[in-house]
Amino acid sequence: MSNSTKSTMYIPTYEDVIVAHERIKPYIHKTPVLTSTRLNEMTGAELFFKCENLQKAAAFKVRGACNAVFGLSEEKAKIGVATHSSGNHALSLSYAAGQRGIPVTVVMPRTAPQAKKDAVIGYGGKIVECEPSTTSREAVFAEVVGESGADFVHPYNDPRVIAGQATCSKELAEQVENLDAVIAPIGGGGMISGTCLTISNIAPDVKIYAAEPLNADDAARSFKAGHIIADDAPDTVADGLKVPLKDLTWHFVSNHVTDIFTCTEEEIVDAMKLVWKTMKIVIEPSSAVTVACILNNPEVFKGKRVGVIITGGNVDLDKLPWMKN
Amino acid sequence: MSNSTKSTMYIPTYEDVIVAHERIKPYIHKTPVLTSTRLNEMTGAELFFKCENLQKAAAFKVRGACNAVFGLSEEKAKIGVATHSSGNHALSLSYAAGQRGIPVTVVMPRTAPQAKKDAVIGYGGKIVECEPSTTSREAVFAEVVGESGADFVHPYNDPRVIAGQATCSKELAEQVENLDAVIAPIGGGGMISGTCLTISNIAPDVKIYAAEPLNADDAARSFKAGHIIADDAPDTVADGLKVPLKDLTWHFVSNHVTDIFTCTEEEIVDAMKLVWKTMKIVIEPSSAVTVACILNNPEVFKGKRVGVIITGGNVDLDKLPWMKN
Repeated sequence: MSNSTKSTMYIPTYEDVIVAHERIKPYIHKTPVLTSTRLNEMTGAELFFKCENLQKAAAFKVRGACNAVFGLSEEKAKIGVATHSSGNHALSLSYAAGQRGIPVTVVMPRTAPQAKKDAVIGYGGKIVECEPSTTSREAVFAEVVGESGADFVHPYNDPRVIAGQATCSKELAEQVENLDAVIAPIGGGGMISGTCLTISNIAPDVKIYAAEPLNADDAARSFKAGHIIADDAPDTVADGLKVPLKDLTWHFVSNHVTDIFTCTEEEIVDAMKLVWKTMKIVIEPSSAVTVACILNNPEVFKGKRVGVIITGGNVDLDKLPWMKN
Repeated sequence: MSNSTKSTMYIPTYEDVIVAHERIKPYIHKTPVLTSTRLNEMTGAELFFKCENLQKAAAFKVRGACNAVFGLSEEKAKIGVATHSSGNHALSLSYAAGQRGIPVTVVMPRTAPQAKKDAVIGYGGKIVECEPSTTSREAVFAEVVGESGADFVHPYNDPRVIAGQATCSKELAEQVENLDAVIAPIGGGGMISGTCLTISNIAPDVKIYAAEPLNADDAARSFKAGHIIADDAPDTVADGLKVPLKDLTWHFVSNHVTDIFTCTEEEIVDAMKLVWKTMKIVIEPSSAVTVACILNNPEVFKGKRVGVIITGGNVDLDKLPWMKN
């Protein structure tokens, strides 16, 4: 696979996914698929939760990050990698760079959860803070890369990253037979693009749904409008889903996604607490968006075997969204 | 296996465990074994977490409860079952009885977590409340059984229950090779007795450790004294571990346990939060006692492959022990 370039958009293939999976296997978990009788009863569907909250760095993003980092030449690797991220990509890239022993710098909104900042530093990453808007983030980042010459690993609009994320639904399809649908959260679209890349190749009859907070519904509006609509600084408890689609992820979303559903902030928090309570796993708000959207659209999922991507588990245990502070 | 009787203590055999496992398989999960690089680094051990928090009813106790309930004759089953329990056995027996469609009454301390009471009722169980002491619990229970004639399934001092709990370490030994040690929390001793029953039969070189809150350290004191010492109403955040050893569990503990470790309330809460944060699973305070005891005794576990029984995940998410209320 050629590296990401701005001028000519390289669209990753399923061959790239196979290569990615072999490359990253030593550094990631094959995460378990969990089921819940209670949630099946509540939704009328058979839900198969692909638990990337139990992944290294507690997020699927370690897949794309490892694929990018371990695909670098020795020469490029020495200079290091850099990125901007609302959180999980930052700590995943830090984890990946730590595994290879190369430098990593991340530009991060100053409002990002402390737990995520601590994790980045714990993996040996260097943090440069920016304001919580896409504009500020990109400006600060340009400076950082200009100075260091580090390889930019975009959190989602990068073919190496998308091929890496695509290994998640590759595993899911190996773990669960005869799925009717897969649903994943959508922010910038990295996970959903990886899902499209895999599923459209190996199981083209499986429907692909995306789930998005109503408060940051730029992907749903883009999907309806037929072109990318980007909001600068949407506000949602699902802090991983604030970023807009880009050309590469739009390619996959516009070609392969069946529908994009939305849910309110209250529905996200309720779904998050429901999963903690019934499944006994710690998931972050962004991961609860899929469950909220399934509960909002029972007619779509009833009687279906549905893969549900639980994207991550990085939350601040001292600031849970259902607790009064 | 004969049913439990007070006069002649029947000691379950490994044959009973094999029968129990076949009997309960349709009603339980084969729970996953999870690992954590971070916790391995912190302890210097290789830890293998047997996740009974992901079990049906979110507790290992469903194993013993199902073995008792599904081992009953049709005639006895019709009359139903009853128990007293600090929580997880109550809801596990309710689950088991619900699966067989027979009546179940549980005597429960009025101070038991609301989440556990709700779960019992959710499974169709009937609750009769008592004061939070062993004395009150046993008195109220005698009345209940006297009236209904229900089969008493003791939470731990019952050979059917111990043979059921023993299936947990049977699975663990199938899932993880070459363990050096297994550690489980100790309250009444049901899980640790089941562990002793299995391990002493199939892997007698594996050391068996028990972990107990310092605030309810009657088992540790019994172990040192060489006879059962029972406290009436100890107070600990590990609400599943407040009950004393009885003759049958004392048999296993005194014959097969290598040592019993203790930890403070603060250490329990810190270990609980640590597991939530690093492993992204919801465990209850009683389950964190093992982790706290491993951290307290690094010289015992360093370099060893250690099975750690995570006993349950039933917590009130609105009253987490590290949050100010």
